[in-house]
Amino acid sequence: MIESIIQGNEKKIIFLILDGVGDIPDQKFSWTTPLEVAKKPNMDNLSEKYGILGRMIPVEIGITPGSGPGHLSLFGYDPLHYEIGRGVMEALGLEMELKEGDVAARANFCTVKDGVVIDRRAGRLRTEETERICEEISRNVKEVNGVEILVKPGKSHRFVLVLRGKGLSDRLTDGDPHKDGMAYVYPEPREEGARFTAQVVKDFILKVQEILSKERVANGILLRGFSMKPKLPLFKERYKMEAMAIATYPMYRGISRILGMHVLGNPETYDQMILLLKENYVKYEFFFIHIKETDLAGEDGNFEAKKRVIEEVDKFLPEIWDLNPDVLVITGDHSTPCSIKGHSWHPVPLLIVTRSGETDRLQFHEKNCAKGSIGTIYSRHLMNLALALSSKLDKFGA
Amino acid sequence: MIESIIQGNEKKIIFLILDGVGDIPDQKFSWTTPLEVAKKPNMDNLSEKYGILGRMIPVEIGITPGSGPGHLSLFGYDPLHYEIGRGVMEALGLEMELKEGDVAARANFCTVKDGVVIDRRAGRLRTEETERICEEISRNVKEVNGVEILVKPGKSHRFVLVLRGKGLSDRLTDGDPHKDGMAYVYPEPREEGARFTAQVVKDFILKVQEILSKERVANGILLRGFSMKPKLPLFKERYKMEAMAIATYPMYRGISRILGMHVLGNPETYDQMILLLKENYVKYEFFFIHIKETDLAGEDGNFEAKKRVIEEVDKFLPEIWDLNPDVLVITGDHSTPCSIKGHSWHPVPLLIVTRSGETDRLQFHEKNCAKGSIGTIYSRHLMNLALALSSKLDKFGA
Repeated sequence: MIESIIQGNEKKIIFLILDGVGDIPDQKFSWTTPLEVAKKPNMDNLSEKYGILGRMIPVEIGITPGSGPGHLSLFGYDPLHYEIGRGVMEALGLEMELKEGDVAARANFCTVKDGVVIDRRAGRLRTEETERICEEISRNVKEVNGVEILVKPGKSHRFVLVLRGKGLSDRLTDGDPHKDGMAYVYPEPREEGARFTAQVVKDFILKVQEILSKERVANGILLRGFSMKPKLPLFKERYKMEAMAIATYPMYRGISRILGMHVLGNPETYDQMILLLKENYVKYEFFFIHIKETDLAGEDGNFEAKKRVIEEVDKFLPEIWDLNPDVLVITGDHSTPCSIKGHSWHPVPLLIVTRSGETDRLQFHEKNCAKGSIGTIYSRHLMNLALALSSKLDKFGA
Repeated sequence: MIESIIQGNEKKIIFLILDGVGDIPDQKFSWTTPLEVAKKPNMDNLSEKYGILGRMIPVEIGITPGSGPGHLSLFGYDPLHYEIGRGVMEALGLEMELKEGDVAARANFCTVKDGVVIDRRAGRLRTEETERICEEISRNVKEVNGVEILVKPGKSHRFVLVLRGKGLSDRLTDGDPHKDGMAYVYPEPREEGARFTAQVVKDFILKVQEILSKERVANGILLRGFSMKPKLPLFKERYKMEAMAIATYPMYRGISRILGMHVLGNPETYDQMILLLKENYVKYEFFFIHIKETDLAGEDGNFEAKKRVIEEVDKFLPEIWDLNPDVLVITGDHSTPCSIKGHSWHPVPLLIVTRSGETDRLQFHEKNCAKGSIGTIYSRHLMNLALALSSKLDKFGA
């Protein structure tokens, strides 16, 4: 529907995404949240003067999203309709470039004995070992049946496999019993058109097994989450905006690229991120800035650290606001409550700073967001609000 | 979607459903609700210590649900997608067993004169008369065209007809003019495959008319709501939980059976219900406890009685909590406001008692529920929350 009423203009929208920022008041933390107790004078000042508040459900009530669905929603892509496969997500996370037709899979080293997977993680193989073995595989198995083989080590026992060639399919079952003590299984084709790929994968595994035959622990591999780069409507075509993404972590840079955003530079610090934003501000209409550290602190259950990240972000906020964006959105892709130490299904606090004159005159935290004028919405509708507030949407119907 | 991320575990979920518990503050009752003024120290204590609050829309904004849609929603079945037909609901309400392929219809005795239905309720025939005539029909019409006939009297002029045999269809129009003073109509087939059933029904009606020819008032019958037991995904398969239902009223026992829940015992009192729960607690992961009396009081417009039922429930609540469930949900299938004296579309107050540490620190009643952290959700999403809070859902997407 959006496509039929979108109208391009030069107004600028900035999404400042604090990964996993949402939290829940737990007794352990005196019923407060990091966002509530953080000293964030700039954010609160913007919120009270120009902000409207609300809460967002990333995917569905009670559903905990991964990073893929969490971000697709933020950008207005229904995550129940569009999916980024697990193999692709892992490949993006290792900054592997994926071409049209490539098939990616998550891979583990494992320990197999008499055809039974006795340890799916090969004793949580050390990263250096994984790097050494991946290097050996790369050197010895460059192609299988005319299909190019790309292997890249990740952390611990994990690596990613990418197949590149003609006529490949991702319609394969997992080559993973998903439990220790079960028989080793090879990926099987889910449909006729995947038969060739299944054969390539099996031949690849056999070659790798030969190489691994001298290993004591990592003598097998498990492949799962076969997937190809999804076909999504490009951000630019959908919203008539040129978009720029600023992120330090490969996975978020990868998701941005899939949507056709321009991923510039290789920032490592917040200062570098802000500099990138300033340098390129005139060239784009939409800016996605991704802050990973709130999520990391939440995963660690570290309330103080999460609070500190928010305070750090608050310090550079004036530099963003001084650029004069028409709409500034501050929110998260999901909640990562310190008490849960992981992603959760809880609604995410949302602040939209606008030039429209409307404001709830409230500071920005979960409790106020539950009272905000936006109400509780689905994340996939956030783009509508941002577009509306920047006059990029025509009236619907006469 | 749930099916793809559900993971079984031993955690236990109890749904304590107070039928029609929701109410609205009416001037007549000093702007209070039964839930608000009821003395329910146990419920309020649980709510303040471990509870999160919200409100639920049973089917859709402004839509008043029957018991079928109300309960399907509670169990996570979208009532706009899954339907239990009226004939089936009536049969369940009379504790008639329905087999695969059976067709059930609601039936009325009526008064017909010169082919015109002059009284659709046969002067609201007395129940004993209905029982007498049904008995006579049962004795004289055991089968029609090879199809077995089952008839069971209900209250007043109502009874239920069940057809049992091969090749039956429920695609029949109502054999009911729906208004007095209109011509008598026979059920017609809605599609080719229902022709045989329509003939069976017509032949049945003709035989019954012969029997009724000597009756002064109840000289005809009206049949409507032809339906078969719906094909629903079983609760156990959908949620990987063995479920037990405890209910006194046949209709709720019947709905539970349709979902594949185990309906144990024949409790008549709350004490007996709690005993059943305790005796079987180790065997199941999900428990549905149905309290009918809140709805009955609401239908009577009896504020005091509704309040008293809530107070009675509060007395046995500790016995439920002492079983140590991981998630305890207290809510209703719909509202039955005393001022309306019937089911209504109003949101239903929802209390979820959890072990997660989160709480809104509020007592349980409609006004607080409107402020609760859950917000206003659709009843069909309640199961998601219960599953999430008992760690039965994996992350969605990578």
